[in-house]
Amino acid sequence: MTDRDHDARTWVDVPPGSSFPLHNLPFGVARRADGSVGAFVAIGDQALDLGRASRFLVGTAAADGLLDDAQTLNRFASLGRAAHGEVRDRIGELLIDRSARAEVQPSLVAIDDLSMMMPVAVGDYVDFYSSLHHATNLGRLFRPDGDPLLPNWRHLPVGYHGRSGTIVGDHATIARPHGLRYAPCTSVPGTNVHGAGDRVLADGPTEQLDIESEVGFIVGAASAHGNRVAPADADAHLFGACLVNDWSARDIQSFEYQPLGPFLGKSFVTSMSPWIVTLDALDDFRVDPPEQDPPVSEHLRTTGPTGFDLNLEVLLQSATMRERGIDAIMISEAGFADMYWTPAQQLAHMTSNGAHLRPGDLFASGTVSGPTPGSEGSMIELTRRGERPIELPDGSQRAFLHDGDTVTLRGWAGSDPTTRIGLGSVTGTITASRTADATMHDHRTHEEH
Amino acid sequence: MTDRDHDARTWVDVPPGSSFPLHNLPFGVARRADGSVGAFVAIGDQALDLGRASRFLVGTAAADGLLDDAQTLNRFASLGRAAHGEVRDRIGELLIDRSARAEVQPSLVAIDDLSMMMPVAVGDYVDFYSSLHHATNLGRLFRPDGDPLLPNWRHLPVGYHGRSGTIVGDHATIARPHGLRYAPCTSVPGTNVHGAGDRVLADGPTEQLDIESEVGFIVGAASAHGNRVAPADADAHLFGACLVNDWSARDIQSFEYQPLGPFLGKSFVTSMSPWIVTLDALDDFRVDPPEQDPPVSEHLRTTGPTGFDLNLEVLLQSATMRERGIDAIMISEAGFADMYWTPAQQLAHMTSNGAHLRPGDLFASGTVSGPTPGSEGSMIELTRRGERPIELPDGSQRAFLHDGDTVTLRGWAGSDPTTRIGLGSVTGTITASRTADATMHDHRTHEEH
Repeated sequence: MTDRDHDARTWVDVPPGSSFPLHNLPFGVARRADGSVGAFVAIGDQALDLGRASRFLVGTAAADGLLDDAQTLNRFASLGRAAHGEVRDRIGELLIDRSARAEVQPSLVAIDDLSMMMPVAVGDYVDFYSSLHHATNLGRLFRPDGDPLLPNWRHLPVGYHGRSGTIVGDHATIARPHGLRYAPCTSVPGTNVHGAGDRVLADGPTEQLDIESEVGFIVGAASAHGNRVAPADADAHLFGACLVNDWSARDIQSFEYQPLGPFLGKSFVTSMSPWIVTLDALDDFRVDPPEQDPPVSEHLRTTGPTGFDLNLEVLLQSATMRERGIDAIMISEAGFADMYWTPAQQLAHMTSNGAHLRPGDLFASGTVSGPTPGSEGSMIELTRRGERPIELPDGSQRAFLHDGDTVTLRGWAGSDPTTRIGLGSVTGTITASRTADATMHDHRTHEEH
Repeated sequence: MTDRDHDARTWVDVPPGSSFPLHNLPFGVARRADGSVGAFVAIGDQALDLGRASRFLVGTAAADGLLDDAQTLNRFASLGRAAHGEVRDRIGELLIDRSARAEVQPSLVAIDDLSMMMPVAVGDYVDFYSSLHHATNLGRLFRPDGDPLLPNWRHLPVGYHGRSGTIVGDHATIARPHGLRYAPCTSVPGTNVHGAGDRVLADGPTEQLDIESEVGFIVGAASAHGNRVAPADADAHLFGACLVNDWSARDIQSFEYQPLGPFLGKSFVTSMSPWIVTLDALDDFRVDPPEQDPPVSEHLRTTGPTGFDLNLEVLLQSATMRERGIDAIMISEAGFADMYWTPAQQLAHMTSNGAHLRPGDLFASGTVSGPTPGSEGSMIELTRRGERPIELPDGSQRAFLHDGDTVTLRGWAGSDPTTRIGLGSVTGTITASRTADATMHDHRTHEEH
């Protein structure tokens, strides 16, 4: 049974190529037109209000009021995969059953009439670094004199904790962060400076504002403290997948990140997409991951198709393009299938020291970059840190993001656009630093290092 | 008015040298004998039950039921310093007013009859690295061939995000974590190994389990996203201080930490002490921090006494010592006053990219180490990574922690033991790895690197 069959079977009018055909049915949280907030399941360009529809969901976790006024999906996520599957299956039946249409239809609302919220309150956020191509590209750029891949990279999925409090949902404005970074002397008039030749270390707005196109995974059922989750058991702890844009200020990151890792270069904001796509929906798109050489430690060993055949796109539109009615252009297309470390391995590794998982924890794959030009998931890679800027149809160039730029990540599973299981999209627009006035001052200290 | 005066003034019998004289009045959360949970304020070796005492606190934030069954202090913390101060002042008056004694006394319970809980649900946890002595010591041990202090260290308070989900309270058992680390071939029979001379990379229990003695600060009033908090305004966002033991597995950390920082070597568990000491209580112990050279960026600049004169001790007792009735020995004594970066600077830095603070966020100072032998706040420093083991009175030696070892951190402000404002203590005991059986196996791969 293909998804095309599925869509023909539902009484809902699902537009061709929709991210959310009958076989997807992702979960989200949204504010209704009346201001209340609740849980929804997307179908086509509509969404089923699980609060209004709960009487149809008797016998499932969605019937007991849990989701009626849910501000987040954390409690629902905690119930585990079987509970999510029951709700999803029942909703699928309702949307197929033409005799239920008259009763169910009033619980469907246009997604455009909803204000999508963060689907979960994220407890801990871990960001991995699991694309071989990305790690190699960034290693070359950040450590030009050394081996791009450090000795640990092929032995474990390198990762770090990010800031959960600054994770935002769709359509956020991203204020350009300030921070300490080296900048050309000419670009920092009146700024507090510590000289280093023709560059000065100065506190000011980042000049290297970047994106990272990633896939995120939300923890469902908790794990117990002290218990290692084996890769084979990882799925039991996963609620679903989304898109993550790990906005990054490369100049701030470059100066601060040794020896304890990225901090303010990342923590200003991270965007996640609003619809959580269950692993059940992605089951037909599992693929064997690349061979791992050297062989990995037992606690990371997997067999079978633990990768996912997902496709990611990054679109960019400048303010000028928007004003002139010019569509966003695609600046990156990458595949998730060849990620070196899989979500199951990442989850297993995260718990291998006994750390437990909480429902709503988020871990992201790291930037998804492919081996070919145009498949890199960050601008620092796409432009070789500005050496090969991107040409925009408004005549301007981009090494990194400008104020007014809008970036959209899109993702879906499979290669047939008519049967895609979409991850949806997540958009953010850069605004000028809100703190510029507060931090410009005329103190100047010249020091040679 | 000295604290000795204060104590003479209260009708509560405060034992001499108590951490919690009348001028301290720290806040905590505890489970009562009947199983219910609520907020308390410590005085001597007793605690005032804010639920039972709320009728005496009319006109303060503690009167409206907010704290009666509080599972955490997050909401109370969010009210800001003025609200905390009102409650603390009112409680101080009650404990001085002898005419109130008969009414108030029934709301006092012995701390020994309470089960102390985590005082807050930590949102984001940031660990800094702000002791010049510690950073220098660790730089020498982790990067013996390079400059121990990296170029950024004197320009910004280096820090990283830790795992908030594995922060625990007092009296935790700390299961020895497993992880990938280099270990002598002889120590890893039957373990999956990747050879490197006489060391093998193997997944097994850490052989370098360590502590880090730190001071933690809890965020009270939130800050707005996009707003930089100036160091001078930091106090307005602080609820109070506690002790933090940032347990660390040095061998796991050494292998994993580049380039994105510590991860599993730290994330298995972090202990915090149960009583939150307000900044008001510490106000008499403010000191000028060390001079910073080179001068720091404007957003980190402070004037006046932004440091705190706190004293920290680390005590160690082996299982054998416990069995034989031998008291714990002190293995480290350090002062917090000469920390290079102050809490106000750490808080300001954390928000300098626009990231906001949430009530209950925790940031810790980094290991507090002094310049002299015996003042280092971690065993890797105290023993020079095992070269100079600590001699215990049971005849054994410690390079790092053994199973059964109990570590206690203690801290207080000021130098006169009769007037100390105590941070209390936090204890943890090491247990054998819970995952040992699950991860031992006989697969062996020999590879030379």
